[in-house]
Amino acid sequence: MAATRVVWTDVDTGLFVESATLGPADIGGRAAGYEVSKRRLRGGLSDGVDVVRVNNGLLAVDILPTRGMGLWKAWLGGAEYGWRSPVRGPVHPSFVPLMEPGGLGWLDGFDELLVRCGLESNGAPEFEPETGRLKYPLHGRIANKPARSVHVSVDGETGEIAVTGVVEETRFHFLKLRLTSTVSTRVGEPVLRIRDVVENLSESPAEAQLLYHVNFGEPLLDAGARFVAPVKAVVPRNPHAAQGLASWDRYAAPTAGYAEEVFFVELLADAQGQTRSLLRNAAGDRGASLTHDVRQLPCYTLWKNTAASRDGSVTGLEPGTNYPNPRSFEGRHGRVAKLAPGASVTYDLTLELHGSAASVGSAEQSIAALQGAVSPTVFQEPLPNWCA
Amino acid sequence: MAATRVVWTDVDTGLFVESATLGPADIGGRAAGYEVSKRRLRGGLSDGVDVVRVNNGLLAVDILPTRGMGLWKAWLGGAEYGWRSPVRGPVHPSFVPLMEPGGLGWLDGFDELLVRCGLESNGAPEFEPETGRLKYPLHGRIANKPARSVHVSVDGETGEIAVTGVVEETRFHFLKLRLTSTVSTRVGEPVLRIRDVVENLSESPAEAQLLYHVNFGEPLLDAGARFVAPVKAVVPRNPHAAQGLASWDRYAAPTAGYAEEVFFVELLADAQGQTRSLLRNAAGDRGASLTHDVRQLPCYTLWKNTAASRDGSVTGLEPGTNYPNPRSFEGRHGRVAKLAPGASVTYDLTLELHGSAASVGSAEQSIAALQGAVSPTVFQEPLPNWCA
Amino acid sequence: MAATRVVWTDVDTGLFVESATLGPADIGGRAAGYEVSKRRLRGGLSDGVDVVRVNNGLLAVDILPTRGMGLWKAWLGGAEYGWRSPVRGPVHPSFVPLMEPGGLGWLDGFDELLVRCGLESNGAPEFEPETGRLKYPLHGRIANKPARSVHVSVDGETGEIAVTGVVEETRFHFLKLRLTSTVSTRVGEPVLRIRDVVENLSESPAEAQLLYHVNFGEPLLDAGARFVAPVKAVVPRNPHAAQGLASWDRYAAPTAGYAEEVFFVELLADAQGQTRSLLRNAAGDRGASLTHDVRQLPCYTLWKNTAASRDGSVTGLEPGTNYPNPRSFEGRHGRVAKLAPGASVTYDLTLELHGSAASVGSAEQSIAALQGAVSPTVFQEPLPNWCA
Repeated sequence: MAATRVVWTDVDTGLFVESATLGPADIGGRAAGYEVSKRRLRGGLSDGVDVVRVNNGLLAVDILPTRGMGLWKAWLGGAEYGWRSPVRGPVHPSFVPLMEPGGLGWLDGFDELLVRCGLESNGAPEFEPETGRLKYPLHGRIANKPARSVHVSVDGETGEIAVTGVVEETRFHFLKLRLTSTVSTRVGEPVLRIRDVVENLSESPAEAQLLYHVNFGEPLLDAGARFVAPVKAVVPRNPHAAQGLASWDRYAAPTAGYAEEVFFVELLADAQGQTRSLLRNAAGDRGASLTHDVRQLPCYTLWKNTAASRDGSVTGLEPGTNYPNPRSFEGRHGRVAKLAPGASVTYDLTLELHGSAASVGSAEQSIAALQGAVSPTVFQEPLPNWCA
Repeated sequence: MAATRVVWTDVDTGLFVESATLGPADIGGRAAGYEVSKRRLRGGLSDGVDVVRVNNGLLAVDILPTRGMGLWKAWLGGAEYGWRSPVRGPVHPSFVPLMEPGGLGWLDGFDELLVRCGLESNGAPEFEPETGRLKYPLHGRIANKPARSVHVSVDGETGEIAVTGVVEETRFHFLKLRLTSTVSTRVGEPVLRIRDVVENLSESPAEAQLLYHVNFGEPLLDAGARFVAPVKAVVPRNPHAAQGLASWDRYAAPTAGYAEEVFFVELLADAQGQTRSLLRNAAGDRGASLTHDVRQLPCYTLWKNTAASRDGSVTGLEPGTNYPNPRSFEGRHGRVAKLAPGASVTYDLTLELHGSAASVGSAEQSIAALQGAVSPTVFQEPLPNWCA
Repeated sequence: MAATRVVWTDVDTGLFVESATLGPADIGGRAAGYEVSKRRLRGGLSDGVDVVRVNNGLLAVDILPTRGMGLWKAWLGGAEYGWRSPVRGPVHPSFVPLMEPGGLGWLDGFDELLVRCGLESNGAPEFEPETGRLKYPLHGRIANKPARSVHVSVDGETGEIAVTGVVEETRFHFLKLRLTSTVSTRVGEPVLRIRDVVENLSESPAEAQLLYHVNFGEPLLDAGARFVAPVKAVVPRNPHAAQGLASWDRYAAPTAGYAEEVFFVELLADAQGQTRSLLRNAAGDRGASLTHDVRQLPCYTLWKNTAASRDGSVTGLEPGTNYPNPRSFEGRHGRVAKLAPGASVTYDLTLELHGSAASVGSAEQSIAALQGAVSPTVFQEPLPNWCA
């Protein structure tokens, strides 16, 4: 039988479904065990947030159309993947003062497993040099823009489930960018595939940035957890990170008052540009890995923030078009996507959850193969071209 | 039979109607062909926006109580009047960062056929001279304030349909202004009459500004479209506009990268202060005209922005109490309404849609009569008293 | 019979009740005359605001979970307590530009009987000294944070009704504070008891401020109304207030253009730290009094703003951890609560409404007893340690 396609939001036609559920019966019983549901949250900071939950029978994930198609949390078996931010969301954008003068308001909504930073800019806030007024807020606007259309496709034959949302980041007279994001998975696999298309709606050229801020906390991020990736080069973002270089890919227990360490990384890839990076726990029986294309996302940032548990112990694995420096700095170094009028660029990111030692080990082997005989270059100090 | 009056929103009494429709049966069948409906949009940037649609059998219009009683779009027969902004709304005010430090956040909600700019201020953003902090945001707050009451009146005898909303722009310790806006039309006519009353709720004197930003794009705004009005004087806003003076009242095709041109205009009027201005397409068989009183709205701004179609090719016909310069500049030149404690001032604006050459021609004739033998004064450079 | 407990909002479990009513039948008929109801407002600036109304048969109060568990208005018999702000709310936080560059956006939502100022800061806005960017907005964030859980307890035996809400003021990397607020009353008494617990969720030390801005206007605040309290010392906030010292505890009729006067007060208390303060009308037959513990809330501010009625004639009785000076000034003078990791601090405030001369007289007597033979020290000028 053919694919089923259901529209849950379409602002253009005035279609909006407050809550709905698709189950095996909706595709003829082929893919027992899956469910796709949609609901709107009420109360507190989450009031008005739409959530699409996909459960493929093995893995479940909450997708947030209201927050730029971010992923809130995922579950494999009974285990939760994501982190416990002191901000308890998901937070509706109307409670996020993105454009406050200091540019850090984005932090009020930050609790997702995967949050996109972009599209006009990401990284540290930047201010107009003459006036000191905020120009680019921390990590950009896209995560606080709601999707104007959301639809779900389910293929009874292949067991593929795909959720697509369209999110626009536009300002009259200024940038006009559209993100079309599809999150897909198949019945029974521990994998989410994200395909994002960023389109320049304008008839003038545009630039864009995109960084996937993929965040994990406890229990995966335990004392002795490790970051594993095929590393060509690693650079500490600042002198503080440089002091932590000796253990840059290992994690200590959550520590009150921990000051974050950030490392900029260049990854090795296969002939098709594919690379993989992994976070695994100390025991090596649980993990999460990302697969992406270094031609699409050449920059990689590792954010270590093993603060106290209640302060949000977390690490971020962050493939991006750029490093999260201020927008102008990255622009000067060419780390932006350039989009001709009407043009688009595609980004693919695969997230796999590992629930066993065998699965973690398999990911480690594929990374070791990518590393091969290459010795990572470890820069002892920030590089001027990489670090603002 | 007498008029029917229905209340759809009244915050004071807790009355709120999510969706409703009035049709011929609701007024005894007298005015066949009309319908007035109310709905709340859901999803995307429009989530929570209330829309009142009036269809008088010939003309239809979407009124936006949530956006200060602005008009989203209008339709005459099958033709749409308005424009295609790259911002696709209508946008709920909670997604408009009006007070962002640079003062341009208003642009995130800008896609209406008619948007009021005011009431404390309109025009370019202005900053505190000492601190550089935003004082007056671009085009003021009223378009992002929701109406606290909305009611509809229908007169079965005259066929008059009127939608009234009350919108307040107040801040404790500061300005206290109320807008009571009524949009009315009659069954079967291509005309909308807007009567706005701005009231000073304070027991201290107040000042107010109001500018009607009435916007048209394609297909009406085609290559060869013309602006027609009885002109006493025209002034280019800046040197760039001065370069476009030779064709200031004519439009070229949409052009990527077009830099906006703004002209400040003084219009001629009849003995009762009535004047008229028209935008017509190249063929002269389609148009839209405004009628207003120059004693109420002495300033007129023509905004030309024939950018590429996808970037929002648009022109604005903008009668106002003032020119859209920074608030303090306009105040120094006396272009504000002064309101005694408890006093109010009324503004009337009539919008007619023209769907035939005969109708366009009739508007042109009435404008020619107002122009009479007067030759427009065309200033070749910005006037210091008009242009900040 | 035991207490009844009903949950109306719990973001963690996805529970949300749009509207509900508890009446005598819900607790077995014991407490005839009371009702607790919950509703969500729609339309205007109030769209999306949840209100819990408690009516104990004598006194009624509207509690605002959406606005940090503030109290909107109260009623005793037919008389309303609160004030008539030119801002007509209650206002949803999404319409309050708290973080606008000038830091005064809080005023757009200011119309409550009781609004908490805190928790990271309260008082006048403060700016970064180097950049001039807003650091602490006027009166802090807590009043514009929605409760993430709300529940009601009713005890059929004692007639006690309690409404509890949990509100968090958190920002990743920065402060993590939680307010658990319980408003309780008993059937048939003219009293509201507020118990607020402020908790440091972080595993690092934190500081907090809390000021209760309790506001009354007409008709209670009439010409000749008086503030009555056991005063140890009173200090005018600035030279303007110093000019009003002779009548600092008396109120004139509403006056257009009145410039606010603020007095900082140190109150006397009994051996258990309990003190009481009263606002009474000229006739002495109506009033409202606060009882609090000066060890919890050592600072007291009297805000006189008898502006014209339509501009919001109001006075604020404001027990707090501090005076409402900029945050850093108060911090330097030690007027902040210091919270160890995981620690919490409790604040108790009792509001009694007085509807008769006897009740007002009783409050005056208890205050006179606290005053005893102590003569207030009246400082003629601002004190450098108290007044920024």
